Amino acid sequence: MESITILGLIAATLTTFAFLPQMLKAIINRHTKDISLLTYIIFVIGIILWFIYGIIKNDLPIILANIVSFIFAFTILILKIIYK
Amino acid sequence: MESITILGLIAATLTTFAFLPQMLKAIINRHTKDISLLTYIIFVIGIILWFIYGIIKNDLPIILANIVSFIFAFTILILKIIYK
Repeated sequence: MESITILGLIAATLTTFAFLPQMLKAIINRHTKDISLLTYIIFVIGIILWFIYGIIKNDLPIILANIVSFIFAFTILILKIIYK
Repeated sequence: MESITILGLIAATLTTFAFLPQMLKAIINRHTKDISLLTYIIFVIGIILWFIYGIIKNDLPIILANIVSFIFAFTILILKIIYK
């Protein structure tokens, strides 16, 4: 695999899994007051559009990265709505 | 411009500008307790790697999107460190 491809995969992994600690923090603390509702609404819509983009382009890394991102971001959005 | 390219641009705009409301919320409220420090450390590193990836690939949309993302995410990270 080319170095540039590896760099892209590391970048994608970091920007995707970055939201795992935020999800866990919201689950553990049951407190999401400082989290922006609008941020996660826009972010989730954007992730869904990236997923559709990946499907149409038949681009597996984009599809997979956005499935994982959706799980984290959608969970944070639900926790934001529940815990406020 | 192709419909698929427009879809990609809309997706990129949403996942980039999603963090503007979070940045503004942190600036206005001066309170970031519920925001995950680790999330924004990993996110900022990932964005820097995406930026380098864009430079090497000479891909202007990736470069521009990640400059904007960096401004929002790095500001949120600094506010998280300042306000705790």
